[in-house]
Amino acid sequence: MNGTGQRHSISDAELNTIYSFAIQLGKDAGQMLTDAINSRRQGLNKPDLPEEKMNAVDIVTKTDTEVEQFIHESISHQYPEHAFIDEETYSKGQSKQYLVTDKPTWVVDPLDGTVNFTHAFPMFCVSIALVVNQKPVIGVIYAPMLNQLFSACRGKGAWLNETTQLPMLGKSLGPLPKNAPGKCIFSCEWGKDRRDNPNSNLHRKVDTFVNMASEPSGRGGLGGMVHGMRSLGSATLDLAYIAMGSFDLWWEGGCWEWDVAAGICLVQEAGGVVTTANPPHDWQTCDIGEVKLGGRSYLAIRPAFDATDGGENARQSQERVVREVWKRAVKLDYERPGVS
Amino acid sequence: MNGTGQRHSISDAELNTIYSFAIQLGKDAGQMLTDAINSRRQGLNKPDLPEEKMNAVDIVTKTDTEVEQFIHESISHQYPEHAFIDEETYSKGQSKQYLVTDKPTWVVDPLDGTVNFTHAFPMFCVSIALVVNQKPVIGVIYAPMLNQLFSACRGKGAWLNETTQLPMLGKSLGPLPKNAPGKCIFSCEWGKDRRDNPNSNLHRKVDTFVNMASEPSGRGGLGGMVHGMRSLGSATLDLAYIAMGSFDLWWEGGCWEWDVAAGICLVQEAGGVVTTANPPHDWQTCDIGEVKLGGRSYLAIRPAFDATDGGENARQSQERVVREVWKRAVKLDYERPGVS
Repeated sequence: MNGTGQRHSISDAELNTIYSFAIQLGKDAGQMLTDAINSRRQGLNKPDLPEEKMNAVDIVTKTDTEVEQFIHESISHQYPEHAFIDEETYSKGQSKQYLVTDKPTWVVDPLDGTVNFTHAFPMFCVSIALVVNQKPVIGVIYAPMLNQLFSACRGKGAWLNETTQLPMLGKSLGPLPKNAPGKCIFSCEWGKDRRDNPNSNLHRKVDTFVNMASEPSGRGGLGGMVHGMRSLGSATLDLAYIAMGSFDLWWEGGCWEWDVAAGICLVQEAGGVVTTANPPHDWQTCDIGEVKLGGRSYLAIRPAFDATDGGENARQSQERVVREVWKRAVKLDYERPGVS
Repeated sequence: MNGTGQRHSISDAELNTIYSFAIQLGKDAGQMLTDAINSRRQGLNKPDLPEEKMNAVDIVTKTDTEVEQFIHESISHQYPEHAFIDEETYSKGQSKQYLVTDKPTWVVDPLDGTVNFTHAFPMFCVSIALVVNQKPVIGVIYAPMLNQLFSACRGKGAWLNETTQLPMLGKSLGPLPKNAPGKCIFSCEWGKDRRDNPNSNLHRKVDTFVNMASEPSGRGGLGGMVHGMRSLGSATLDLAYIAMGSFDLWWEGGCWEWDVAAGICLVQEAGGVVTTANPPHDWQTCDIGEVKLGGRSYLAIRPAFDATDGGENARQSQERVVREVWKRAVKLDYERPGVS
């Protein structure tokens, strides 16, 4: 852990103030994303205007940079003593060492789901988290084209549009299904590593996907027969939908702390579990450890509730399902300096 | 073709009236889906109420039936001379023969994306189409939890929320990318056939998915290196997002005419192409035929525009991409009586 050796504490009152600030910041940043889509639509559709030469990649770069600057400046102005990390923190070509210390650090993705954004597919968002002592204590995710604002703060629960507490279907969710991953919605992403060799992350992921999808008798007994396989193209929104209870399981490797920090806060505040995607060697019996923010390997399980028949409690059902996923998961290969 | 031998014609004026009726019907049916989600949330979360014994499957069945009855009765009352087909048209266990004749026929899915609906994941919708002479001439798709109403009518274009003409980004979309399927968002669904044998539809689909995802040098030169892989769990919304221009390609087998009829109308009115997912034997040179509504095999390409540099026109770029997908597609095995 890349800490300072000093534990930091933020009072609940102070956290409340920061939470309000973060929500407003998310709303304002999301509006910038909406404006960018609208100006692209209007500008490029006017037949009397000279055709803009800007392509989709330029638009992402421009929007990403503008929203990043806005968020960074707003935070620096309001909380100059806090640290700030996002993808722009790293110079091009630099190895992405894990830089989050124990001091209050904003971990931000100004635009998650960039490919969706260039296509005006609504699954894109801004993601803003405050991390203290390595733990995300505030998370704000705003998907403006979906009109969905997700927010969470340590001890205050997770919310949709500030009015609906998550998980959305509340205690009717119960524990995870008895035969999970059967009856579950499994969310996963294909990612950017597309090398076609048996050892590539592409093939490790596909092996895992097919294990999860196959009939129970298939894959040498590893068939998970999940109810549905979903891929949205946004790790951040995958986590938001886990918090919402809309997805039961999310398994992913290769993304970074700015993709997941806000989502982890949401899932934990909603009552879900986040741990590593890569099965430990003693996966059948080990303690289910808390996720490493910079570990690039994530497994999230939706919020659960105790069985009303006196059977399994919520946490027991979640731990059972973590192991059921690990059993079927091929270990992914995403290393990084500074994180074991 | 299971026709009556008689061609039917509906005037534009008459079609306008029916279109308004269909849009209102979609809105009302969508409201019923919203109400069902809300009553589930409220009813099951009240601690002072006895716990309802209804599980997620019961809720789907009940909602599906109620919305189906509402739509069916509304249409029968307003247009008693029209035919009506949806999944309920078939008794359980009956082989699903293709029953759409040339006479005006409403083809309806009261709830597409049922697994999403049970999980309160927003990607579910109602789908209403009017088919005349085997062609969908009106399509209405309403996803109430997304606040997205898609509608199209022969000759009147395709629309989002009645105000935004599709494709959303207009002519800035241009032709399909030169190296397509590279740079494309590819939408696909894993489906319900989960048999783990090399010849199953699961493995045929996965082979195709991996072809589309792999680096260009991979898969013996078949690597498509698509920009993104997406799976929403709703064939209807896949087509709506093709019409919107948010997805470039959708390739799918196994669904039915009520899943696609409204979406096909939307895609065609927006300027897209829908044909068969299964490559013909002469796929490199054959005419790109129009989709068979009941063929259970669908390939949709997004709306396109002529290149401004005098190169490829829209249709040429779409036909090129159809063949690029066929080149990488393993033939799926979904037969049905009455459709060759």
